[in-house]
Amino acid sequence: MQFTAHEISLLLNGTVEGDLNASISTLAKIEEAMDGSLSFLANPKYEQFLYHTKASIVIVNKTLIITEKIDCTLIRVEDAYGAFSVLLEKYNTLKLNKTGIEQPSYIHPSAIVGQNVYLGAFAYLGAEAQLGNSCKIYPNCYVGDNVTLGNNVTLFAGVKIYADCVVGNNVIIHAGAVIGSDGFGFAPTNSGNYNKISQIGNVVIEDNVEIGANTTIDRATMGSTVIRKGVKLDNLIQIAHNAEVGANTVIAAQSGISGSTKIGENVIIGGQVGIVGHISIAKGSQIQAQTGVNKSIEEEGKKWGGVILQPYQGFLRSHLIVHQLPELKKRIEELEKIIAELRNKQEIIH
Amino acid sequence: MQFTAHEISLLLNGTVEGDLNASISTLAKIEEAMDGSLSFLANPKYEQFLYHTKASIVIVNKTLIITEKIDCTLIRVEDAYGAFSVLLEKYNTLKLNKTGIEQPSYIHPSAIVGQNVYLGAFAYLGAEAQLGNSCKIYPNCYVGDNVTLGNNVTLFAGVKIYADCVVGNNVIIHAGAVIGSDGFGFAPTNSGNYNKISQIGNVVIEDNVEIGANTTIDRATMGSTVIRKGVKLDNLIQIAHNAEVGANTVIAAQSGISGSTKIGENVIIGGQVGIVGHISIAKGSQIQAQTGVNKSIEEEGKKWGGVILQPYQGFLRSHLIVHQLPELKKRIEELEKIIAELRNKQEIIH
Amino acid sequence: MQFTAHEISLLLNGTVEGDLNASISTLAKIEEAMDGSLSFLANPKYEQFLYHTKASIVIVNKTLIITEKIDCTLIRVEDAYGAFSVLLEKYNTLKLNKTGIEQPSYIHPSAIVGQNVYLGAFAYLGAEAQLGNSCKIYPNCYVGDNVTLGNNVTLFAGVKIYADCVVGNNVIIHAGAVIGSDGFGFAPTNSGNYNKISQIGNVVIEDNVEIGANTTIDRATMGSTVIRKGVKLDNLIQIAHNAEVGANTVIAAQSGISGSTKIGENVIIGGQVGIVGHISIAKGSQIQAQTGVNKSIEEEGKKWGGVILQPYQGFLRSHLIVHQLPELKKRIEELEKIIAELRNKQEIIH
Repeated sequence: MQFTAHEISLLLNGTVEGDLNASISTLAKIEEAMDGSLSFLANPKYEQFLYHTKASIVIVNKTLIITEKIDCTLIRVEDAYGAFSVLLEKYNTLKLNKTGIEQPSYIHPSAIVGQNVYLGAFAYLGAEAQLGNSCKIYPNCYVGDNVTLGNNVTLFAGVKIYADCVVGNNVIIHAGAVIGSDGFGFAPTNSGNYNKISQIGNVVIEDNVEIGANTTIDRATMGSTVIRKGVKLDNLIQIAHNAEVGANTVIAAQSGISGSTKIGENVIIGGQVGIVGHISIAKGSQIQAQTGVNKSIEEEGKKWGGVILQPYQGFLRSHLIVHQLPELKKRIEELEKIIAELRNKQEIIH
Repeated sequence: MQFTAHEISLLLNGTVEGDLNASISTLAKIEEAMDGSLSFLANPKYEQFLYHTKASIVIVNKTLIITEKIDCTLIRVEDAYGAFSVLLEKYNTLKLNKTGIEQPSYIHPSAIVGQNVYLGAFAYLGAEAQLGNSCKIYPNCYVGDNVTLGNNVTLFAGVKIYADCVVGNNVIIHAGAVIGSDGFGFAPTNSGNYNKISQIGNVVIEDNVEIGANTTIDRATMGSTVIRKGVKLDNLIQIAHNAEVGANTVIAAQSGISGSTKIGENVIIGGQVGIVGHISIAKGSQIQAQTGVNKSIEEEGKKWGGVILQPYQGFLRSHLIVHQLPELKKRIEELEKIIAELRNKQEIIH
Repeated sequence: MQFTAHEISLLLNGTVEGDLNASISTLAKIEEAMDGSLSFLANPKYEQFLYHTKASIVIVNKTLIITEKIDCTLIRVEDAYGAFSVLLEKYNTLKLNKTGIEQPSYIHPSAIVGQNVYLGAFAYLGAEAQLGNSCKIYPNCYVGDNVTLGNNVTLFAGVKIYADCVVGNNVIIHAGAVIGSDGFGFAPTNSGNYNKISQIGNVVIEDNVEIGANTTIDRATMGSTVIRKGVKLDNLIQIAHNAEVGANTVIAAQSGISGSTKIGENVIIGGQVGIVGHISIAKGSQIQAQTGVNKSIEEEGKKWGGVILQPYQGFLRSHLIVHQLPELKKRIEELEKIIAELRNKQEIIH
């Protein structure tokens, strides 16, 4: 895909300074840009880069005053950062704009497929599966029996969705993620082994959710594991059966939420956090990476950390003192010695 | 699937109170049940729900005395909880009762396939692979050359089993799990890079094991990585080369077992635990989530925790004191001040 | 595959003691070997095993003096360990020596495929994808549009590589790994939800890299996430957008590197380590399993550990004192009591 400065200026409602026919085929940061790239300058701190960039075209604010010689073509707009974001999204949409059904793919005769859909080779749609309009199902995906996907859902390569799960509109699920695997439920027997507890519930994913690569979300024992609208999950996250993640909550990579736990809205959870089962986390909580959350958080909007949960400031203070423990221990021993001496002397005095 | 109260009562050897033709198509908890659901009441604590449930049919104990008006049909049985568990399992078995070979799939001419098997589209059976009876291989699975699966093995979508691995009877492996990838073995060279050490062993999985979604189990360097009978592994677990997990051991999500470590029987390991290589964990040990196990556990049946391994009660006590460290440090400083004063005074006294 | 003692001795330039026609079909450790196995003895500590092994053939050093009766055939060579390593590698190369294109597979008409390639069934090569010579692409792999693979690249079953990524020569990627998924980038809005920031960069993997099963490496927002030559990544690792991993660095399972962080060369990182974003880790650093790295490491070649980063020796010392905290707290309380008494007495004295 090639675009000229003129074409881009029309799109952005901007004005060109330089070569109207300057053309680009990719987007890049101003400090990394090569010939054939489009870049932008919004933050005055980076102005120096403008005079040395190899970008062919740079989008700048209308108000920018040029103080040195430049080699690139400029497009002046009201808001350079906003304009570049628009282009970034358009560029990506163009790149990912696949449609059509590649062969061989597998569509069960009872499956229902919407308009304007992409279905990659080796993708599988089970019995009574439903696909909304403008869905993109990449190669090697598995959509089980009776799964429902809304409109404009993207499943990247090799996503697996077990039977009966429900996915809303505008959901993006990255490669290798697994939705609806059995919850980890077993009943111990007297002989020391375990009987499987059938997991007959499902997973419900609401609108505008994004789920990272190789993340796993287990189906409920009965009822639903629920991912509310606007949730963003990073890669390699584990969500156990009957958990619920509140609207617009964001969870970083490799964190795990145990069974039946309810996370509130607008919670921010760092990477590698572990949260025990059957608790609830209040709205707006922020949890530091690697925290062990062993009890409910009831107060809204606070920051937390710790090997065992504690307020974040306390976590920082107390764990930095952990580093001083060898020295503190010595100081205690020193005190004990001195006091033993003092006592001896006092006894002598008496 | 629709069933009437009459049909279900025959199955459970129960008696119907209400509408013999009341019909259900799903199972649900009594407090979440909708019209068309079957539910159960076993725990007297939940009796109140019986009078308000929207379930169409509720299974109850023979002995239950109804004290208010009810809208649903009852089926009375000896043991309501047991009867419901039976139905749950039957329901699940019916749902998962797939057979037949979907096209296109790939079966190497030298592969051997048992009776009554399901092979999903885009599933792959390599040279000399063997499948027992009643196996269910979901779409996009990969069963490598010379892999042996016993009877009644279920591989959910996208499971990959490398060449030469052996899987017993009644094993369930969830979507995206990888069995038999190369162990992480490299020999450093003098020039600072690494030579790969060939990993020619395999993975052996015994009967009645369940393995979670996207879990990875590496093949042995030589010999076998072994998962003993009845083991239950949750999602996103890492089992390294030449490790052995003892019978009926249960491991929660995102834990990792390093190379050549031997876990005993009936061990319970929480989520996100890390266990170093070349150690052994005694039978019946219980290890708290996120523990760092850095040495062998020799005593059987104890509980453990800690950033560095320690008995669980000690872990709780000592890490709660970590939270008090800023205050304890102040108390030490206070003591030091007082003692300095006391000493001064004593010197004055002398 | 069957080989005789005579054939192996020719390959290794060794001499046979025993049955020239003794034949083996596999390799094993001397203490685990069965009939039909080839084994080796290099370390004199294991000499006892030689007199009891069930191996059919054992490779030994030229200089070894036999002191008891043996049942197996010997092959004497200059360096038994080195000779065995050669065989291990040859054996593995033979086993993994697949070529040809299985059907059905999907090769976009614009894709370019090198010589001597293996392409498994249900593997997918997107538009303008390029495959070098001697590549092995196992079943159910996805190679997106415009992806470039060098020579001698192995993708085990179900690897997914998103569009535009670049992979060097002699790279091995294990089953289920995901390369090039979107970085985790979202801009919060005033209404509490998030807008996706398009991730238009790629992943670049240099020569001689090995990547473990179900590991995920996100594409850069713009530019590249880079894995330098000789890097070895274990299973279930997360590498976030715009991160860079230096040459010959080794990372154990389940560790996570956050966005834009730069790891130096020859770093060794244990399992389940978490590293925050936008920092750098000096060349030759060694980081203990489960460490939380919350700031840059500037000094080269040091060892680190800790819940909050600290030098490794300090980590060991201070966390072992954490275990003593309940006792230390008592000692502080004891000191406080004694001092209160001492003070009282002093006041009485005055």
